[in-house]
Amino acid sequence: MAARFLVTYHVRAGAETIAARARAIAVEQSVEMPIEAIEAPEVLRDIVGQVADIADLGAGAFAVRIALATATIGDDGAQLLNMLFGNTSLHDDVVLADVEIPSALAATFGGPRHGIGRLRRRVAAPNRAMTCVALKPQGLSPHRLAALAARFAAGGVDFIKDDHGLANQGYSPFADRVRACAAAVRGQPTRYVPSLSGNLDAMRAQIALAREEGIDTVLIAPLLAGFSTMQALVAGFPDIAFLAHPSFGGASRIAPELLIGTLFRLLGADAVIFPTHGGRFGYTPETCRRIAEAARLNRVDMRRALPVPAGGMTLARVPEILDFYGPDTMLLIGGSLLMARERLTEETAAFTNRVATHQYR
Amino acid sequence: MAARFLVTYHVRAGAETIAARARAIAVEQSVEMPIEAIEAPEVLRDIVGQVADIADLGAGAFAVRIALATATIGDDGAQLLNMLFGNTSLHDDVVLADVEIPSALAATFGGPRHGIGRLRRRVAAPNRAMTCVALKPQGLSPHRLAALAARFAAGGVDFIKDDHGLANQGYSPFADRVRACAAAVRGQPTRYVPSLSGNLDAMRAQIALAREEGIDTVLIAPLLAGFSTMQALVAGFPDIAFLAHPSFGGASRIAPELLIGTLFRLLGADAVIFPTHGGRFGYTPETCRRIAEAARLNRVDMRRALPVPAGGMTLARVPEILDFYGPDTMLLIGGSLLMARERLTEETAAFTNRVATHQYR
Repeated sequence: MAARFLVTYHVRAGAETIAARARAIAVEQSVEMPIEAIEAPEVLRDIVGQVADIADLGAGAFAVRIALATATIGDDGAQLLNMLFGNTSLHDDVVLADVEIPSALAATFGGPRHGIGRLRRRVAAPNRAMTCVALKPQGLSPHRLAALAARFAAGGVDFIKDDHGLANQGYSPFADRVRACAAAVRGQPTRYVPSLSGNLDAMRAQIALAREEGIDTVLIAPLLAGFSTMQALVAGFPDIAFLAHPSFGGASRIAPELLIGTLFRLLGADAVIFPTHGGRFGYTPETCRRIAEAARLNRVDMRRALPVPAGGMTLARVPEILDFYGPDTMLLIGGSLLMARERLTEETAAFTNRVATHQYR
Repeated sequence: MAARFLVTYHVRAGAETIAARARAIAVEQSVEMPIEAIEAPEVLRDIVGQVADIADLGAGAFAVRIALATATIGDDGAQLLNMLFGNTSLHDDVVLADVEIPSALAATFGGPRHGIGRLRRRVAAPNRAMTCVALKPQGLSPHRLAALAARFAAGGVDFIKDDHGLANQGYSPFADRVRACAAAVRGQPTRYVPSLSGNLDAMRAQIALAREEGIDTVLIAPLLAGFSTMQALVAGFPDIAFLAHPSFGGASRIAPELLIGTLFRLLGADAVIFPTHGGRFGYTPETCRRIAEAARLNRVDMRRALPVPAGGMTLARVPEILDFYGPDTMLLIGGSLLMARERLTEETAAFTNRVATHQYR
């Protein structure tokens, strides 16, 4: 009996068509051909997806659970996505809603190499929520970004991440930016987190350069880099912690809690950024709660990943956000802190102080 | 004056909110921070996205054109996607509809290295539409896949591609499969097209192995591999033609004609597979026509890419599909040919013969 794991799709269909639609998805995400044309009995038995059950969600939607063969994934991150949602992503009646990650896949991909516990140790924050800010806007020179970093660090923030738009552009080459920003925070507990870009070779060189500058945490957008690229980096640089950015996450077709909370974690993200409710993105509080729950879910086979709510957060919202997510969280305030301009250090200090002294309800 | 290029988003909004929403997208896809907090005048002038115009499409939808700074892309494929649709993909009121690719970006990425003309020369088909079939199901051994390939080749097909689900699984490792399938078609005009998987290192090794076996065309899914991965391969293997697969294309959020017709081509895809109308996917005839038009659009700065309609095509539909797409096309029939079982060679010959002798209306 071949090992299988359960994948849940939410499908818009009529009651009279859902059974056939479910079988079609099971075929599309496995052998992708008419099963009556399959001659090999072992393929029919061990490879073809099987409809496990169908639940009526009401309002013309159904939850279809399909058992996919673990062997079709092999050990490759991109192939995982391919088997979960490759061709079916082209059908607009389907959302990829959930995956029950079996221990075999957890062992293959490994999950966070550092996770919440080791991130806490890095910044000497054993209990409180952690803090993060973003270096922006793109277009500034390395020198000016480093000056911003110094002022953020003086405000006592834990992590300063590059804006995910900072790549290797002419106006701010990666090497110059990283050297300048690393120097700006050196000797302080604050971590500067550069954003990786380009292909696997380029990202390896970027991490190597960053490591020489004493950096131990980097930012990566798994959907831009490719899951296999991230997988190779996580395996190749076990001393480096990875902060995952949701850019290009196209949230409406893969449930955000699955993509960001479960799959990014499975790939090895130690911390996962996502747009929190009430900001400039449309995730509901319930979606955000589920992202955090998926990232932090206790499993014996994988470390927990740190949820990093972001996306239009302000200082005024810190208490509410902390009460919502609890202390195993890192708050990321991006652009709104920069509104303080010459008072940037003071505003950053107000942010870090508010997080450190928060009394949970 | 910094170089800019126009990106079109289709946005659901009210007439009273669309102007603000358009400005928000322009900011999100460039500096991602409040512009009143930007101190550097050169960033405001050269980097911040600008709303070029807004057109009412009716029914609560608007076409918003935004001029993005070309400098923010640099020379990286993933960064192109990041700037086009990174964070905005997380907003479900927006579809990325169109990009006017400037010659600067065409020169940076290079487009198809072979294109329609050189693909025709490979298979000695100067005028007629070309033909393609798929090796499947996954789960078969290399030996059995090779036996299928031999029968397809005997039917005179131009290209035999791996099913995109074939990766490097235990039951059919890439190296064994490629050696067996290459041997099965050797000495015939038919091209075997193996599917690449894994990270950049793995794909390079796969191409090198394939090349040793005399293979000159490979299959890649750009959204699974990552745009930067594909970009590196296209640049690194100029003798190899790349057939792009739409897996994980999540079509509802990026217009298919843009993603498959324009962006895959820009990255260097010589031929682009897409699900044609009337099959088991939901693209309309108009969408399919636009994909083919974008792939074949005459440009002085880029070769034309070959459209490859697929996705539930049958022998019976060949005349209709040929009349629809014309001869600068490759028809891909996957599973339905395999229904012929022991008559596979004869059915393949009927397919290739029908394509070769078709009288266009």
